[in-house]
Amino acid sequence: MSRLDDQIKFIIEVDKIKNIFRQTNIGKNIRRENDAEHSWHLAIMAMFLKEHSNFNDIDLAHVIELVLIHDMVEIDAGDTYAYDVEANKTKREREVKAAERIFNILPEDQAEYLRNLWDEYEAEETNDAKFALALDILHPILMNDIGDGLAWETHAVKESEARQRVARIEQGSKELFDLANKIVDNNIAKGKIIPDMDIIYDK
Amino acid sequence: MSRLDDQIKFIIEVDKIKNIFRQTNIGKNIRRENDAEHSWHLAIMAMFLKEHSNFNDIDLAHVIELVLIHDMVEIDAGDTYAYDVEANKTKREREVKAAERIFNILPEDQAEYLRNLWDEYEAEETNDAKFALALDILHPILMNDIGDGLAWETHAVKESEARQRVARIEQGSKELFDLANKIVDNNIAKGKIIPDMDIIYDK
Repeated sequence: MSRLDDQIKFIIEVDKIKNIFRQTNIGKNIRRENDAEHSWHLAIMAMFLKEHSNFNDIDLAHVIELVLIHDMVEIDAGDTYAYDVEANKTKREREVKAAERIFNILPEDQAEYLRNLWDEYEAEETNDAKFALALDILHPILMNDIGDGLAWETHAVKESEARQRVARIEQGSKELFDLANKIVDNNIAKGKIIPDMDIIYDK
Repeated sequence: MSRLDDQIKFIIEVDKIKNIFRQTNIGKNIRRENDAEHSWHLAIMAMFLKEHSNFNDIDLAHVIELVLIHDMVEIDAGDTYAYDVEANKTKREREVKAAERIFNILPEDQAEYLRNLWDEYEAEETNDAKFALALDILHPILMNDIGDGLAWETHAVKESEARQRVARIEQGSKELFDLANKIVDNNIAKGKIIPDMDIIYDK
């Protein structure tokens, strides 16, 4: 029974992801969202937004697996905020170490399977990974929008930063890229994201 | 763009599942678990426990879809505790009404696809649904066990009730059924679940 024992140990270990809180809020800023909720939401988005991917050969089951596991490393490495330049410098190193510890709780073949999934997600090269990434970037934009832009305001996010981030959606989905840009437009108009023009004038 | 509009409306609507709290706690009773977290955890269990299902023809992608959506109706219907006899009498009616409202936010073809998934889960007839149900029942048993049986104690759960619930795992996985029974055994021994013997002697 030791194979099942290891699998159960892993399942109990990843329960900890429910304590990893993101910078994004749920609902109308009820509280911060955690990685388990975020990953669930991405999987639902994959199910119902698949038709908007740039590719005809998307393997939905595979995209769902990618998004379900993409943040598991944050159990050890913590959530690194997209706009935090310093923290992003050490992100990769912290996350690789986490993957080595957490994934290896599983039987070897499954640890390898999981590591391959995570590597694929991180590499952003396959069509499935590109679409998964598009969802991962669109999701907090949707959430911040229903939260009336509070997360952007709190972190004083600038248009150029938001646009740079949104740009990464395009390789997975041109339609979702357009949608995200419209949401950014609206939130600049509402004063929730700082327009680049203002920065130039401030100088 | 109205198809995408409806899809986004649905994705924002189901964010509410993160506020539906279960009777089960996360970690060592840190706080109650919500349906988004629970559903994510079931999907991970499906990925790594698939080999323990009773069937050779399990469609993992389909099982994952079933578990990801199985509790969406609770956005309107609320969580009905497994051992609450009264609440379980009205559960089906409340949940069907919820499915009709929530699923129909989606474009018609996707609403129908989602309804078919949920109906399949509820019917417990296909092999995929039987395995999905086995995971759904095993999950709170694992969680209660790491929480040192607090949820069972709080609700004064009796052995016969726990065994009756665990029995439903067997149709999906004999191995996970054995595991669940061992956990129940341990929690009876630890005084967290009330043994039926005590009930008989109390009369």
